[in-house]
Amino acid sequence: MSNTFGEIFKITTWGESHGPAIGVVIDGCPSNIPISERMIQKDLDRRKPGQSKITTSRNEDDKVKILSGVFEGKATGTPISLIIENKDNRSKDYGELATKYRPSHADYVYDAKYGIRDYRGGGRASARETATRVAAGSIAKIILKNHKVEVLAYTSQIHKLKANVPSKVSPTLIEKNIVRCPDQTMAKKMISLIEKTKKQGDSLGGVVECIIKGLPIGIGSPVFDKLEAKLAHAMLSIPAVKGFEVGVGFNSVEMKGSEHNDAILKKGRTVITKTNNAGGIVGGISNGMDIILRIAFKPTATIFKKQKTIDNKGKATTLKMSGRHDPCVVPRAIPIVEAMVDLVLADELLKQKTVK
Amino acid sequence: MSNTFGEIFKITTWGESHGPAIGVVIDGCPSNIPISERMIQKDLDRRKPGQSKITTSRNEDDKVKILSGVFEGKATGTPISLIIENKDNRSKDYGELATKYRPSHADYVYDAKYGIRDYRGGGRASARETATRVAAGSIAKIILKNHKVEVLAYTSQIHKLKANVPSKVSPTLIEKNIVRCPDQTMAKKMISLIEKTKKQGDSLGGVVECIIKGLPIGIGSPVFDKLEAKLAHAMLSIPAVKGFEVGVGFNSVEMKGSEHNDAILKKGRTVITKTNNAGGIVGGISNGMDIILRIAFKPTATIFKKQKTIDNKGKATTLKMSGRHDPCVVPRAIPIVEAMVDLVLADELLKQKTVK
Amino acid sequence: MSNTFGEIFKITTWGESHGPAIGVVIDGCPSNIPISERMIQKDLDRRKPGQSKITTSRNEDDKVKILSGVFEGKATGTPISLIIENKDNRSKDYGELATKYRPSHADYVYDAKYGIRDYRGGGRASARETATRVAAGSIAKIILKNHKVEVLAYTSQIHKLKANVPSKVSPTLIEKNIVRCPDQTMAKKMISLIEKTKKQGDSLGGVVECIIKGLPIGIGSPVFDKLEAKLAHAMLSIPAVKGFEVGVGFNSVEMKGSEHNDAILKKGRTVITKTNNAGGIVGGISNGMDIILRIAFKPTATIFKKQKTIDNKGKATTLKMSGRHDPCVVPRAIPIVEAMVDLVLADELLKQKTVK
Amino acid sequence: MSNTFGEIFKITTWGESHGPAIGVVIDGCPSNIPISERMIQKDLDRRKPGQSKITTSRNEDDKVKILSGVFEGKATGTPISLIIENKDNRSKDYGELATKYRPSHADYVYDAKYGIRDYRGGGRASARETATRVAAGSIAKIILKNHKVEVLAYTSQIHKLKANVPSKVSPTLIEKNIVRCPDQTMAKKMISLIEKTKKQGDSLGGVVECIIKGLPIGIGSPVFDKLEAKLAHAMLSIPAVKGFEVGVGFNSVEMKGSEHNDAILKKGRTVITKTNNAGGIVGGISNGMDIILRIAFKPTATIFKKQKTIDNKGKATTLKMSGRHDPCVVPRAIPIVEAMVDLVLADELLKQKTVK
Repeated sequence: MSNTFGEIFKITTWGESHGPAIGVVIDGCPSNIPISERMIQKDLDRRKPGQSKITTSRNEDDKVKILSGVFEGKATGTPISLIIENKDNRSKDYGELATKYRPSHADYVYDAKYGIRDYRGGGRASARETATRVAAGSIAKIILKNHKVEVLAYTSQIHKLKANVPSKVSPTLIEKNIVRCPDQTMAKKMISLIEKTKKQGDSLGGVVECIIKGLPIGIGSPVFDKLEAKLAHAMLSIPAVKGFEVGVGFNSVEMKGSEHNDAILKKGRTVITKTNNAGGIVGGISNGMDIILRIAFKPTATIFKKQKTIDNKGKATTLKMSGRHDPCVVPRAIPIVEAMVDLVLADELLKQKTVK
Repeated sequence: MSNTFGEIFKITTWGESHGPAIGVVIDGCPSNIPISERMIQKDLDRRKPGQSKITTSRNEDDKVKILSGVFEGKATGTPISLIIENKDNRSKDYGELATKYRPSHADYVYDAKYGIRDYRGGGRASARETATRVAAGSIAKIILKNHKVEVLAYTSQIHKLKANVPSKVSPTLIEKNIVRCPDQTMAKKMISLIEKTKKQGDSLGGVVECIIKGLPIGIGSPVFDKLEAKLAHAMLSIPAVKGFEVGVGFNSVEMKGSEHNDAILKKGRTVITKTNNAGGIVGGISNGMDIILRIAFKPTATIFKKQKTIDNKGKATTLKMSGRHDPCVVPRAIPIVEAMVDLVLADELLKQKTVK
Repeated sequence: MSNTFGEIFKITTWGESHGPAIGVVIDGCPSNIPISERMIQKDLDRRKPGQSKITTSRNEDDKVKILSGVFEGKATGTPISLIIENKDNRSKDYGELATKYRPSHADYVYDAKYGIRDYRGGGRASARETATRVAAGSIAKIILKNHKVEVLAYTSQIHKLKANVPSKVSPTLIEKNIVRCPDQTMAKKMISLIEKTKKQGDSLGGVVECIIKGLPIGIGSPVFDKLEAKLAHAMLSIPAVKGFEVGVGFNSVEMKGSEHNDAILKKGRTVITKTNNAGGIVGGISNGMDIILRIAFKPTATIFKKQKTIDNKGKATTLKMSGRHDPCVVPRAIPIVEAMVDLVLADELLKQKTVK
Repeated sequence: MSNTFGEIFKITTWGESHGPAIGVVIDGCPSNIPISERMIQKDLDRRKPGQSKITTSRNEDDKVKILSGVFEGKATGTPISLIIENKDNRSKDYGELATKYRPSHADYVYDAKYGIRDYRGGGRASARETATRVAAGSIAKIILKNHKVEVLAYTSQIHKLKANVPSKVSPTLIEKNIVRCPDQTMAKKMISLIEKTKKQGDSLGGVVECIIKGLPIGIGSPVFDKLEAKLAHAMLSIPAVKGFEVGVGFNSVEMKGSEHNDAILKKGRTVITKTNNAGGIVGGISNGMDIILRIAFKPTATIFKKQKTIDNKGKATTLKMSGRHDPCVVPRAIPIVEAMVDLVLADELLKQKTVK
């Protein structure tokens, strides 16, 4: 298990879906940064279950408590311990899952790897774990704000519905609808599709886009920890992510060098590029342009149709799940994507100070 | 800079394109593994420049020497130091590049980050650095062989030319042509296109696919070092890579859960899945099925057309490069992709032993 | 701050003396190990305050709760989160300490380093932090038991009183008295001296000896993580430790090579050495003999006599502390030393499996 | 094996005593620092064999070559690769050692751990490895100079001969004699004793003292990487070291708190302590006072008297070594101690920048 992320701004998360609590310890947060439970809570509320008709109805307040590292409202430089209690863990919903492996879930690989498994709600493999990432990201974000860096993620595609993303995306535009898509017309269609699919007991995937604005030139650690490599690592560590692109990504394959290369210009005292096919990173280092990421989320593995599987004795069986689950993880994944990007950037911004 | 990769099987690479040599130190290689320069050389020869008419004509033997860690043909458990001398480094080719920044190269971000830059041949940012990854990967591969794990990468697309990949891909099929595409008909077209583009002074991108066969169930370290996250990290650390997919990847977005989920079956004593949309990984852990990756390479940034850029005083200028460069990095990237995958898997296979 | 210890069996601790709680997250514990709160509690009780007339009268139950990583009494391979609530934190005792720096404490260096400080009870710099090490060590100890490795620490000196340590030391002999010295006659004198010194408002130091029995040949990671180097690191990370020796330690200086060298012999099928001046480690690797450590603890910095110091404005002042403190940390340090040794050895025993 | 040291200023060493070369890769050196082979050579010359009548007569120039990371005399921020060829490796001297284990050497534990061993000159376990530490330390020292930090080590004791160390120690006083002891009268006696012991085929140990001057308040990373813990780790990683003290060290044990505590004063604008029993570190963080370390070196294991041992079949045998060896490692250990301290401090000084 590797439950630590980051090198300078380092987080360690813990907790199972249906244990008493989940939490995170943040080590390496610079001192004197203002930190409050309210501030973290705001971010957690964007991820929490039951927030809208298109998310799971599991009812968790996700109330965060700060147990250490903050004194009189400010970080002391010591480790910050955050805890979120699990409340609405109806373990009975999962009874059958003690013995039957859910298709496309981690149940049987955990059993194979560890020889034991907390089957209640998926245990550690549950996406509930990501709440602690959002809590930690909330603190990373303050470091970014001090450097005037902003991270914005939004839904750009649900199933086959592709948004027409406006050139100026803002938090307001994104939060205007429950699917977190800045194209309001498409957002409505997406919501209807999710609702319809939910009724059918099926699930959907989608694409999240993420823009990083204001990152100074020079952030990133070549050669093995190129900025895009660390971002890819962070994104693929999020449950259900199956693909990652930076800049024009896979589309760069069908371009020629003469089309893809970004001419370098000077605009006032700033170096910019005419186009931004690179997506803000060259040679593993930020070049001052917007960083643009695209992340593919597969459809939720938990569906309510009968599926073929085996039990823990290896016998063929079928499984028809009940319980409460997101028909599409994308709307709640937005703050998770942002949090992971925040964590990568906080780490690199702090590391940058050791260069000179 | 982060020039170390891996946690248990740990490599540290060093060297500039036009310095006296490049090299790698491997720490954590289990003892008693047979290691020879000949074995490593074989892999280096697949990556070396000047190997065919569609690669750069830079003439490097890339002869590897073992300086430590091997005694009487076997690993001793001490660090293995490998060195490759740089021979054909015609530094004069790069004269103009001391002051002019190449578009879509790392020149100016290195200057911005470090305040100094070895401009000869791109210095540390040159893809020449990847030779040391291939050398280290060659040793990682022995660990994989001992576990009967095989990694196969090949060209699946060049520009708009998509290969019709046969269901049984073999090293022979891949090495049958210089573009390393198992579809022999398409390979010919790809080669012609690359040659034609080279003559035009332009460049091309492509897609590399990679299949991992024989990996046992249980490899991978959730939650932050999920197997797909480490593979994505490794792939995006390769120069020119802009996208990564595992399993059906971005295509999963347009599937419903009921289509995407892989039913779990028992085949004899082995647990398999009916389909393999997941691409061999669930919850960050291998499930015993083939692991399937797709990696997008952008067109080579070095082209021989006149381009707009600035110099190191910030003045607008134009640049028309000469010299020797690959018109398409994909054919030589095949052994690099394999090496990085080998390194990730050797690390995880060794780490796995600490679990129980 | 570095609040993580270990590489494979990795612990991260958090918490301040007078915050709501302290805790530790253990990542990398092999699955299926039996773990219970009762087992951990037993070790915590040996460290807890108020256990005898020669320790502080602060009244803490130090009741540990397991929040994650254990399912039906067994480790699941996921991170184990342990929490201990702070109860008897009479913050008023520390009022004056908000502004005055205690001599030989970390107060003013924390202020200088972090620009902020939780002054209540020493905050993170309080030895209260070590309770979480003991809790984590309790789990490490199970791994050691599975390898038949035993770690025994005891008091060998208090101030000028040196114990006559019997050749066979046992847990029973050590726990027979509250100063944890296996020489029962000297133990009585030590206890009287501590009581007398306590009445005088002064404090005492001492030496802890630690014997590791049953460690197999081959444990340790040269060259930078030699076993003695990791043990020294662990010991010097304990508050109040000022010296460390392995084997004959500083006494080796006055021996000649011909006196100090340990002749190698075969006893049955085992390789042993005639003498054990090396203290069980050669070249950074265990040689199968008992490992012998000696650790120097300075007298407790908190005394109840008037002392010269400055306040946080830099003004000269005097300080006369009141409150509850150990007149000698050594008796309660015994389980802390053992825990840190347990943690080092668990890490190295697990790492050893990756060698071959 | 762990051949990497440091977290920000990170070195990886490699090489065997009688292989073709030894070397080190330094990753994380800030760019634009002036670096030359001449500068590094000066430090290597203080450690090199054959420098005086009291050191081994092995004849090595120890000429260092810079292979990467330096461009036009300055660090580029990329990894710095340094190499030292092995020249005078008379492997025949070691013939008998292929099968017989030297007492108090690492021969048989290496065989036990790795199942293979480069027996020529001790292979990786040879102190020859420390040349690469001195080379790396030479670069770390520049970072220290930029912070006006000075590290001075010297011989304070050889066998029973204790120096009367003057209150003002200077590099000149230390380098005035070949035993590197600032007490010139005692130095002569030490030299005679070493020569006499050499003739007897025996060996001697000693104590090295080390003073760090000018380190600012606030350096060190509690709780597990306290400055004294990292220094102890570094010192105990040096071959032949068996003990470590900071400040008054083991002598603190016999002091009372009222004697040991260092009163805090203000001297001009600086916070100082009246005494310096702590040795410049409180709570794991530097307090601005001189840091004082004492390191115990055991007598060299290689002696030229007949010794009892076993061979690699487990048979009892005797061994009488010939060849060239230091009768006392202490004089040549001085630059090694300094280098390791330099490395710890460079790392912590750079890390310090990430705090605020």
